[in-house]
This record gives sequence, structure tokens and C-alpha cells, in this order.
Amino acid sequence: MRFSVLVEVRLRPGIADPQGATIERALPALGFSGVDQVRVGKAVRFLIDAADEASARAEAQDMAERLLANPVIEEAEVTVRADGKPDAAS
Amino acid sequence: MRFSVLVEVRLRPGIADPQGATIERALPALGFSGVDQVRVGKAVRFLIDAADEASARAEAQDMAERLLANPVIEEAEVTVRADGKPDAAS
Repeated sequence: MRFSVLVEVRLRPGIADPQGATIERALPALGFSGVDQVRVGKAVRFLIDAADEASARAEAQDMAERLLANPVIEEAEVTVRADGKPDAAS
Repeated sequence: MRFSVLVEVRLRPGIADPQGATIERALPALGFSGVDQVRVGKAVRFLIDAADEASARAEAQDMAERLLANPVIEEAEVTVRADGKPDAAS
């Protein structure tokens, strides 16, 4: 069976995020106000063939930890859906 | 009122994604099989002060189009939630 997976890779809380800080500094000049705590992560989407949702999730979680994220500074959140695009990122 | 926003920036369909292709090529060597169509995008999270959810969403959508995504090659999906982290990316 085919599953849609979304892996959101985020910097762990407390890890400096220069890209997010740069976006935040640029916002007032573009007329945006009231925005803070900007953090930039990665959103990796793929399709996976697996027997059931549990094994799809296990393989995606393993991929996230071994390849997609650096667990020292990043955390990964895996969302699996049987068809179409996966739901968030709860 | 304070809203949590998630902007997922994805390459448009048909735009080459070398980062995704590299991940896909690396997977078999790590023992992962059955994974394809890997696409890598950005996940930008921030907090926004706005009167209501509609205006928070409008400001975030405007930010996504003017600053976070390059609309020529990327599409952005905005998810807004009143508290905690926003739901996906439906």
C-alpha cells in the first residue's frame, strides 16, 4: 500500500536560527508587524510503499532520524496519510 | 489575539529538486526501499498578532508570497491556528 509522508524537520528550541532571525528583521521594512518567533525548518514529502500505516510510519521515522534530521540540533515530526497529502504537523 | 502560523513552501510540480533527488539516491545504501517522489521544501513557523483568524491568514499569505516563497518556482500553503502549533498542510 502506498502512503504519503510529511517529515517536518525543525531546529530544537534554544538552537540559534539565523535564517528565521533574518526573515524577522526584514518584515518591518515590508510593512508586516506583529510577527515574531520566526523559525525556519525543512518540509520533506515523499511516497512510501509499506504493508500498513504503522510500518510506513516506522520506516519514515527511522529515515528522519538517520538521514533527514541531525538529531543533535534538530527534531523531526512524521505525519503519514494513506492517500493524498499527509495532515500536519500537529 | 495571537495565532500560530505554519507556511509550507514547496517547489511547484515539474521544477527539478536536486536535494530531493540526492536524498532518494542515498536511501537504498541506508537500507530503505520503496520510497520515491522525495521533495524538499521549507517549513516556516511564526507567531502573529492579529484581530482575528482571517486577518492573520491574510497577512501570513501576503508574507508567504512577498518574502518566504519565490512564486515563479514555489507555492506556499498557509495554516493558521489560534493556539499551539498549526495543523498541516492539508
